[in-house]
Amino acid sequence: MDKFMQMAFLEAEKGIEAGAGGPFGAVIVKDGEVIASGHNEVLKHNDPTAHAEMIVIRQASSALQEYHLKGCTLYVTAEPCPMCSAAIHWAHIDKVVYAATKEEVAEIGFDDALISDIALHKTDDPVLFVHRPLLESKRLFKKYTDDTDRIIY
Amino acid sequence: MDKFMQMAFLEAEKGIEAGAGGPFGAVIVKDGEVIASGHNEVLKHNDPTAHAEMIVIRQASSALQEYHLKGCTLYVTAEPCPMCSAAIHWAHIDKVVYAATKEEVAEIGFDDALISDIALHKTDDPVLFVHRPLLESKRLFKKYTDDTDRIIY
Repeated sequence: MDKFMQMAFLEAEKGIEAGAGGPFGAVIVKDGEVIASGHNEVLKHNDPTAHAEMIVIRQASSALQEYHLKGCTLYVTAEPCPMCSAAIHWAHIDKVVYAATKEEVAEIGFDDALISDIALHKTDDPVLFVHRPLLESKRLFKKYTDDTDRIIY
Repeated sequence: MDKFMQMAFLEAEKGIEAGAGGPFGAVIVKDGEVIASGHNEVLKHNDPTAHAEMIVIRQASSALQEYHLKGCTLYVTAEPCPMCSAAIHWAHIDKVVYAATKEEVAEIGFDDALISDIALHKTDDPVLFVHRPLLESKRLFKKYTDDTDRIIY
């Protein structure tokens, strides 16, 4: 096994032994160096966003002091869920290497597929989304775009 | 304007005045009480995941010491991106009220639509996803499911 994937598995194992969350670990590598490693901590922190991928993206961007992780590869023990996939895109990571598929993840009780199906409008959305159009948003956006000193990201 | 939405707009304004990130604010309410409020901090923390919604979900779950936010409503100044939408589902939030649409957000330069299109396979994915099947994932998942004391979430 690739040494970086092996590290991701060791992280996952550490996570379940500590009861931190699901059996998922991840590592971010840049230029052959590990710059972040972590595991799922949903239970440890009572944080539904604390997936392994989110944790290592935050760690890596903090370490590099960059909100774009160009040139980075993410090794993760399982296929990223829709939240983590979107975060990977926002982070501009180059490449993701994963082991278990989302079908295998579903078999052990994690409902990533439901969230994908909601996004694809294949199933009813249990969350009620209400659009409330407001003039205030035009004013706010204008204030933002009028500021020519703003950092565009 | 609804007082909670007004608070979300005040947060967004605070965020852009501080140069913390994009013009987005959010508030989480439970039983008529605000339990979390925040704004985009992508630039402040160099963190591509620091969208207003993610920040308030993490704050609220920490405050309530629960990884599920049942009974909560999220007020947010703009339609959540795919990362935040998935996080909202993982968090089991009941209801989301938003003002600006994703089309309006696109007009001021945020490419949520690109990420949605990638998820919907409407456009090429700039990130290379590589599946590397490994027996190790079966062993890890078995170790996880064999632990009958584990908390299922």
